[in-house]
Amino acid sequence: MRTKMSGAEQRRTELPGLFLALEGPEAAGKSIQMSRLASHLDSRKVPNRLTREPGGTPIGEVIREHMLRGHPDIAIDGLTELLLVSAARAAHVEEVIRPALARGEVVVTDRYELSSRAYQGYGRGVDLGVVEAITRHATGGLEPDLYLVLDLPVEVGLARKREAGFDPDRIEREDAAFMERVRQGYHDLAESDDRIVLIDASGPPDGVTATLLETLSARFPDRFGPGSDAQRLDR
Amino acid sequence: MRTKMSGAEQRRTELPGLFLALEGPEAAGKSIQMSRLASHLDSRKVPNRLTREPGGTPIGEVIREHMLRGHPDIAIDGLTELLLVSAARAAHVEEVIRPALARGEVVVTDRYELSSRAYQGYGRGVDLGVVEAITRHATGGLEPDLYLVLDLPVEVGLARKREAGFDPDRIEREDAAFMERVRQGYHDLAESDDRIVLIDASGPPDGVTATLLETLSARFPDRFGPGSDAQRLDR
Repeated sequence: MRTKMSGAEQRRTELPGLFLALEGPEAAGKSIQMSRLASHLDSRKVPNRLTREPGGTPIGEVIREHMLRGHPDIAIDGLTELLLVSAARAAHVEEVIRPALARGEVVVTDRYELSSRAYQGYGRGVDLGVVEAITRHATGGLEPDLYLVLDLPVEVGLARKREAGFDPDRIEREDAAFMERVRQGYHDLAESDDRIVLIDASGPPDGVTATLLETLSARFPDRFGPGSDAQRLDR
Repeated sequence: MRTKMSGAEQRRTELPGLFLALEGPEAAGKSIQMSRLASHLDSRKVPNRLTREPGGTPIGEVIREHMLRGHPDIAIDGLTELLLVSAARAAHVEEVIRPALARGEVVVTDRYELSSRAYQGYGRGVDLGVVEAITRHATGGLEPDLYLVLDLPVEVGLARKREAGFDPDRIEREDAAFMERVRQGYHDLAESDDRIVLIDASGPPDGVTATLLETLSARFPDRFGPGSDAQRLDR
């Protein structure tokens, strides 16, 4: 249920913080943009918290380590993978995201449930209704205020990964056809939900940062707008 | 959906095998009874498959080892635990249980989703509707033909565990009050579902085996009955 907020801010939760999720394939530059968003908020004295999933909590890191990066010899079907990342997500929401939002912070997470719809749903073929139902239970219905999807042609991402000697995890080891389905998923989902915004991430990082900040400033002027008064957020 | 079968057999699935789940607290003697059921079936040339959860598959064993037994310092809330055991369960159903049932075998699992209702639901306070919804998605709705719950007063179980120098896992490390809630859960659930049968497990194993076989013989005379023709099951 959306609640009308002051100015252009529309919120998905009654919690005072702002909840943003950065999404997209690996090599799209999520990590760089995450830290730039944090610097931007720091410089304005807006309390913020960067986090990631799967991971972000002790049990989440164990799941990340043993399920996604470890035991590459063990096959995991899409539904099992969904339940594992959902377990990490449940802990993440409970231990990290809700408390930070309750303190009024801007939470920026590297991936959230949109990743499950794109990767386990579109990518691995788990029924989207099942993905959404399990996710809703895992998160208690907590949705981000905005999803920012760093969008990249699959071949550009693959070339960047080869160049960087990127160490792929289990999910990222999938082939180009899989990555195309994931990308199509992000596009489809963005089309049906105005809280999902695609950001062209094929250019240099500075341009991507500028686009991100423009988008955020238009949607959340209180926190990101050019004339915002950081004092008001320090309470 | 139940389908009326020949004789007293009523099935929960269209698969030709028979699906039994042994339930109850640790120290109730599930392992001993499991192997006796297998011996009984072997002696009658009824193809059977013993399995357990969490575990029963490579990824399930990783979850059991690293999530439930390992890292005792890491706290896991009830919902996260539910999603972890559900991940193991999804793989278990897909890789082990359905294929064995499709081959017409008698599958006996040490724990199934009733454990989630008892432990994560009654024991840890996760909403039973949430437990059931997540379970239904994880199992694709596959339910056992019969649950046999080895029932034991909590203090008897604790005394047996102390005697045996039992090495408890994360879930079993809970206190007596927790175990009382779990036991109450098994009792409540048995009252509302005639596929859940409580078996008094406080006496010696031989008596428990006799009761188990009587129960199975009455419900599934084709496989367990005194005059059953094993040849018919060999097809």
